Amino acid sequence: MELVAIGEILAEMVAIEQGQGFLEPGLFAGPYPSGAPAIFAAQAARTGCRTALVGSVGDDAFGELCLQRLERSGVDMRWIRHIPGRPTGTAFVSYEKNGSRSFVFNLVHSAAGMLEPSQMSPELFRGCRVFHVMGTSLIAPGVVEAVRLGIRLARDAGAEISFDPNIRPELLTSSAIRETLGEILCASNIFLPSQADLEYFYPGVPERQAAALLLERGIRMVALKRGDRGSLYFDSGQCIETAAFPAEVVDPTGAGDCFGATFLSCLMQGLPPRRALLLANAAGAAATERRGPMEGASSMEELERRVAN
Amino acid sequence: MELVAIGEILAEMVAIEQGQGFLEPGLFAGPYPSGAPAIFAAQAARTGCRTALVGSVGDDAFGELCLQRLERSGVDMRWIRHIPGRPTGTAFVSYEKNGSRSFVFNLVHSAAGMLEPSQMSPELFRGCRVFHVMGTSLIAPGVVEAVRLGIRLARDAGAEISFDPNIRPELLTSSAIRETLGEILCASNIFLPSQADLEYFYPGVPERQAAALLLERGIRMVALKRGDRGSLYFDSGQCIETAAFPAEVVDPTGAGDCFGATFLSCLMQGLPPRRALLLANAAGAAATERRGPMEGASSMEELERRVAN
Repeated sequence: MELVAIGEILAEMVAIEQGQGFLEPGLFAGPYPSGAPAIFAAQAARTGCRTALVGSVGDDAFGELCLQRLERSGVDMRWIRHIPGRPTGTAFVSYEKNGSRSFVFNLVHSAAGMLEPSQMSPELFRGCRVFHVMGTSLIAPGVVEAVRLGIRLARDAGAEISFDPNIRPELLTSSAIRETLGEILCASNIFLPSQADLEYFYPGVPERQAAALLLERGIRMVALKRGDRGSLYFDSGQCIETAAFPAEVVDPTGAGDCFGATFLSCLMQGLPPRRALLLANAAGAAATERRGPMEGASSMEELERRVAN
Repeated sequence: MELVAIGEILAEMVAIEQGQGFLEPGLFAGPYPSGAPAIFAAQAARTGCRTALVGSVGDDAFGELCLQRLERSGVDMRWIRHIPGRPTGTAFVSYEKNGSRSFVFNLVHSAAGMLEPSQMSPELFRGCRVFHVMGTSLIAPGVVEAVRLGIRLARDAGAEISFDPNIRPELLTSSAIRETLGEILCASNIFLPSQADLEYFYPGVPERQAAALLLERGIRMVALKRGDRGSLYFDSGQCIETAAFPAEVVDPTGAGDCFGATFLSCLMQGLPPRRALLLANAAGAAATERRGPMEGASSMEELERRVAN
């Protein structure tokens, strides 16, 4: 596989009303196939990148829902494990009136938390060019071990490591997670942070200065996701600022994952960074226009059309 | 506490459309406070019975939702435990076009599965007259041990054991569960089965004959729940058949739990069986008219009004 992603596969329920929360009954849409690495893998496969996802689901209808969608998107399913007796992970999302999100998760004790190193082998990384890791996945010791093994196997295969910290305050529950985030940043060649992620690693440091520090410490490229302000790209030779595409935002969850997947997929297909960033911005915009984190994944054709208009 | 119930406290999501299932996104209503023993305890407390619930929730919004509702219903909350790091249990329900239900559960590995004997003490059973056990709760070895300890402590306190098997095929996953169901039936004084439950214990045996066999083996009273056909009561001296109240059925989940809770609460308040059955039938009917398993719990006044009309 050219691109290998790893981590949580979830079913997601999205509150219909802003500010609805979880303390009173209301209406939710779902279950939607979700999990940041799963959204990433689906979007990468949709844009023509040969993509494998290492993950785990329970033997329930939610697992089946996710598998059906990933398979339809073209993701290589051979590295996804069924965990008997465990429920597929779930996330409930409610958008607050100020635009922030609140979550109720079932992760650590779900099938998603049971992902383990034994699911991976050198075969998975044969021909691999990028191994993509997300911070949300580092929820259990077994998953962290699997990520570490993946980084070793990917490097042995000559692949680069891509890292999207995707930091959510709800998941920063231990100093071990914080240490692991730092460890993976050190191992990374490609860094795809949000503004909040960059602020987590470099609190108070202006964006461009933080990016320069990252390049100094050996990261080859940084693509900063700035939501409706587009993206900002840095490598040793250039800085590229690209504007966001206009979008009728319905549900922003998954937009960053679709951005990162499209960016890497385009680069691997030989497109220059500026073109990859434009198509990635288009993928982020498309993702926000559909309710459900994976519903707005786009084909390359759809993205090219959006960029052309 | 006069009445002690034990078992799962859940947040429940109910599919809006018949036949909606879980393999495509749709609309769900919820989260609703749920869990058969929790519905039972809320309804018993609403009708004026001093009721304690032994259970466990996670430290998430779904746990808070359930605790708020149980407290508002008047349930003694001192025996409910918070389990840090575990999610509150969840149930997703979809009604199929033939009226059957399909479920996706997170039970065994949720806070509900962490209920344990240490949560109980003789103090809980001081003044107890009935200890109520439900088959749905027997999901993990710790819960089964807690139920066994409860039966011992309840008997020491001079209380009777009431049992609602509430059998769901999805939960009959091991021969251990089947054995435990038989063991609890043997320990019971009051038996509150559905028709499917009776069929499970006495396959192919007509209802009245099965009831006679149960009385022979030492059960003091049997109240058979027959849905829209009302209820059928047996003790050594009489058989009472009561019709169901007409109801605009929206969501039948929880109706059997509300029936059982009202029946026991009324008996403990000194009402004769026929009156207790009428009020219990009214509680079952009321429960079906509201979406959400605990939303249709009724006060004694509301039930008396329904019986009078």
